[in-house]
Amino acid sequence: MASFKEQCLDYHKLPRPGKLGTEITKPADNKEQLSMGYSPGVAYPVEEIAKNEKDAYLYTNKANLVGVITNGTAVLGLGNVGPHAAKPVMEGKGVLFKKMAGLDVFDLEVNEENPDRFIEIVAALAPTFGAINLEDIRSPDCFYIENELKKRLDIPVFHDDQHGTAIVVAAGLINALKVQGVALHQAKIVLLGAGAAGIAVANIILNLGANPDLFYLMDRKGVVHEERDLPDFKRKFAKKQHVSIEDAMNGAHVFIGLAAPNSLPERYLAGMADKPVVFALSNPDPEVSREAVLKYHPNAIYATGRSDLPNQINNVLAFPFILRAALKLKIAQITPHMIASSAIHLAGLVENPGVESIIPEPFDKRLPEIYELALSTSDERD
Amino acid sequence: MASFKEQCLDYHKLPRPGKLGTEITKPADNKEQLSMGYSPGVAYPVEEIAKNEKDAYLYTNKANLVGVITNGTAVLGLGNVGPHAAKPVMEGKGVLFKKMAGLDVFDLEVNEENPDRFIEIVAALAPTFGAINLEDIRSPDCFYIENELKKRLDIPVFHDDQHGTAIVVAAGLINALKVQGVALHQAKIVLLGAGAAGIAVANIILNLGANPDLFYLMDRKGVVHEERDLPDFKRKFAKKQHVSIEDAMNGAHVFIGLAAPNSLPERYLAGMADKPVVFALSNPDPEVSREAVLKYHPNAIYATGRSDLPNQINNVLAFPFILRAALKLKIAQITPHMIASSAIHLAGLVENPGVESIIPEPFDKRLPEIYELALSTSDERD
Repeated sequence: MASFKEQCLDYHKLPRPGKLGTEITKPADNKEQLSMGYSPGVAYPVEEIAKNEKDAYLYTNKANLVGVITNGTAVLGLGNVGPHAAKPVMEGKGVLFKKMAGLDVFDLEVNEENPDRFIEIVAALAPTFGAINLEDIRSPDCFYIENELKKRLDIPVFHDDQHGTAIVVAAGLINALKVQGVALHQAKIVLLGAGAAGIAVANIILNLGANPDLFYLMDRKGVVHEERDLPDFKRKFAKKQHVSIEDAMNGAHVFIGLAAPNSLPERYLAGMADKPVVFALSNPDPEVSREAVLKYHPNAIYATGRSDLPNQINNVLAFPFILRAALKLKIAQITPHMIASSAIHLAGLVENPGVESIIPEPFDKRLPEIYELALSTSDERD
Repeated sequence: MASFKEQCLDYHKLPRPGKLGTEITKPADNKEQLSMGYSPGVAYPVEEIAKNEKDAYLYTNKANLVGVITNGTAVLGLGNVGPHAAKPVMEGKGVLFKKMAGLDVFDLEVNEENPDRFIEIVAALAPTFGAINLEDIRSPDCFYIENELKKRLDIPVFHDDQHGTAIVVAAGLINALKVQGVALHQAKIVLLGAGAAGIAVANIILNLGANPDLFYLMDRKGVVHEERDLPDFKRKFAKKQHVSIEDAMNGAHVFIGLAAPNSLPERYLAGMADKPVVFALSNPDPEVSREAVLKYHPNAIYATGRSDLPNQINNVLAFPFILRAALKLKIAQITPHMIASSAIHLAGLVENPGVESIIPEPFDKRLPEIYELALSTSDERD
């Protein structure tokens, strides 16, 4: 029998390369139909859109089209593999957008590592799309790129590695703390990982009401504090002075790992609060194993990115539906408030959260509507 | 009953906007399949491509994907309507690529009129595509853009407004001259129009063996001659000194119009050779009417871009098939020699050319194979 690797390669290769193609969505089988869809009839929608740019949403695929765009600098856990090697992941994203939310996707792999030039390219492509999903761009470039594009464009720009992760982590955390009986604003929280996902999770957790004094951001060098040389995106979470990992973990109600496999030594688990929440989200292996967590804390709630364990933290619960809602509601930008509201609504889908059921299922039929609700009821004060 | 305009707008609008969407080409209905097409199995093709870039053709849609890319500066006969208004045309092109040749297309409308910056953008997008079809870019920018991209990229770059038109015009001309009993190298040829299509047609006709001394290029200001201030792309076709339109048309065997509706006054027809060939290809109305041509020359062969008259000169006979062949044969660039060879093979599909049958039908089943033949037998001497 073929190995899993061989099965995966064959899946991508046979009977034709890739996973995403294009389909014709209108009848185009005879001269009459082609005379409407192409020459000469196509001139009519062209003239309408030339008069009013917004009519592109009436007459073209812009209305339902997401650009999934990368430069291949941070692909999966594999790092900077370049734009060609990023393509299977981007196509896979397109498959999920289509399958989960009916959105059409063009996956674009851009051969440009310079953030400013990358921004120019993506900005120039905006007429093509109804929304842009940035993907697998290295940190800290991704923060700058997303912010600049949001300023320049009037279509939603969403960096899934940041905000998709943030929404699902926050939703899981809301339910996990509910199960454990700890209020978010009273929870001591340690977050390991200050990359794209880590920073976005830090932001959403504080936006949702966590206490900054009880929040500890850690990176490879330990707890982030102001005596270190820090970029702005880390500085806002810095402690006044040095704090040891032991001190941070001691009494912590929550540990969230968005770092590297096996990056949390087991011994730090010992000092955590009773009934802790541990999200160990690195791929393919978590920061700390389920076995280790349950050994120290039998009543812990444990979540990973893996589909073979309970409580899978999976971005697919967010990105297809939030962009579908943004397109449907014709929202110009997805704000931090909408992102936080989405997490709350997503958490609310689990009617009776339990130790092994803090997250809704990806095929929950209510997912489209709760994101519409989250985006339509968010105000614009961000 | 709805007017044709209303029918065309409804066609684009209902039941969903646009004409082109994406489709999932692999089974993706359960966790097992998604684990091969997305996380974690997608890492295997990523690693293979990271090791060998060319493996993108084995594992991704690059193998069958054409980027139809415009900046909207010369859309149909409507001019610089901008990238948004260009979208219905680019989508329509995608429909034809798919319908005729099974190629997948991402239509990209780029908000960038500066040729150098446009080149940077398209060049950076090359990892996404197996080939690039430039479309509706104004002259003379289109010549520079195409040439620079061909130099920089190792995937085929094809400007359909130039070379698609050139192939089909040349094929029609080969058969028309055969019917009229005139050898190409002995034919006096007048070409009105020095835009993208005009210059490409001038090049292919001379590449095929027309006599430069008997070839007259005309633009809005009359016959192109060296006493005028000329850009390089016109200079190579210039006469030594001023020639009147009357003198050019006098005794001409061939008139080809790639200019504006009604831009050839009827009186110039009178002096043409007996049994002339008149291609009047401007849209929506030809440079000179069929009635006028047949009044002066009952034995003329007349062709237009219109589907309701005999001898329709239609790019769809070229662009889907030449790019399909280039992808299938993994050709790095489409050379002028391949373009000329394509015209000869296309002409050859008409077994018994006649006054009203100089061009094959678009649904001729042999089209894919003759382009493969044209591209595989062309040498690389260009």
